Amino acid sequence: MPKRVDHALRRRQIVDAVCRITLKGGLAAATFREVAAEAGVSVRLVQYYFGTKDQLLLSTHQHVAERATKRITERVADAGHTPRDALRALLGSFIPTDDDSRETMLLFAALHTAALVDPSLARDESLAVPRSLHAAITRHLRRGKLRRGTDPDMEAAILAGLIPSLAQAVLDGLQTADEAHQILDYALDRALT
Amino acid sequence: MPKRVDHALRRRQIVDAVCRITLKGGLAAATFREVAAEAGVSVRLVQYYFGTKDQLLLSTHQHVAERATKRITERVADAGHTPRDALRALLGSFIPTDDDSRETMLLFAALHTAALVDPSLARDESLAVPRSLHAAITRHLRRGKLRRGTDPDMEAAILAGLIPSLAQAVLDGLQTADEAHQILDYALDRALT
Repeated sequence: MPKRVDHALRRRQIVDAVCRITLKGGLAAATFREVAAEAGVSVRLVQYYFGTKDQLLLSTHQHVAERATKRITERVADAGHTPRDALRALLGSFIPTDDDSRETMLLFAALHTAALVDPSLARDESLAVPRSLHAAITRHLRRGKLRRGTDPDMEAAILAGLIPSLAQAVLDGLQTADEAHQILDYALDRALT
Repeated sequence: MPKRVDHALRRRQIVDAVCRITLKGGLAAATFREVAAEAGVSVRLVQYYFGTKDQLLLSTHQHVAERATKRITERVADAGHTPRDALRALLGSFIPTDDDSRETMLLFAALHTAALVDPSLARDESLAVPRSLHAAITRHLRRGKLRRGTDPDMEAAILAGLIPSLAQAVLDGLQTADEAHQILDYALDRALT
């Protein structure tokens, strides 16, 4: 039997190598040469699977987004059933409290910044996460009992905007995770009765 | 007379070169060699003034923060005198509407991400901007007439957290500057009568 190659596994090993290198030294350090060495494959193989650095970073972005979405979906499923419980679980899961969530937020920040500077990376795919987050928040808010005078779209925009900042402030050491959760709770209380 | 060297000007030329390179290709591209070539000086001179990449990035961060602070202070001085006017001018000035504000936000994002990944860059100096922003917002809110049940510290945390996200969403093309201003106005109306 000819040797079967698990392409998905190979691609995954390479993308994981990009993540590890980025967490140690920033995206700048993730050259094809460094990624190949870290993944234990040849530079040609990285080129074969991803072609350009652009493609490699987009695949890394998608991988990080999928991993985060899985973790967040599980947390929301475990949460209570009121809209406030769901929102608290959904939004709270972005606040880094362990290595996994910390690494995810660092990778998002690094990939997002790269996309800001290099317009070829700023594709529509990379806007999928903030767009679906905004849609999910609006959906939960509309299920709930909104305070008088509140606009669900505007409240969703505030909550969606607040979350990356709270997460980054915790990473920066500007705030503790507890303080970030308090601000989130306050923002939810301002929107929902 | 011996030739006088304007050290401040030389440092400024080098820091400006870091900014231009970062805006074109990200901080990764800002090696000592590239910075020296862009500034039209020798690599030795960059090393003489800044020693390490760490020092160079910190000086760049301070320069970008000073330039932004000057622009924002002028806008606040030109604004009306109510707390709401002052807050609108202060916070609105982060939303990119021209090349200058767009470049400033891109540079902040790049420098901030570098600091997240490289703890040697995450010094207390780089937290000065978010800390002073939060303090200024709280000060203006306390001068104003807060809505019943609002907490000025929490409202300041929400506004301070919202601003970088609104700015980045405009850079990303997720929102227009007008939409960002509408969200900001809504958030101000929720805090102040």
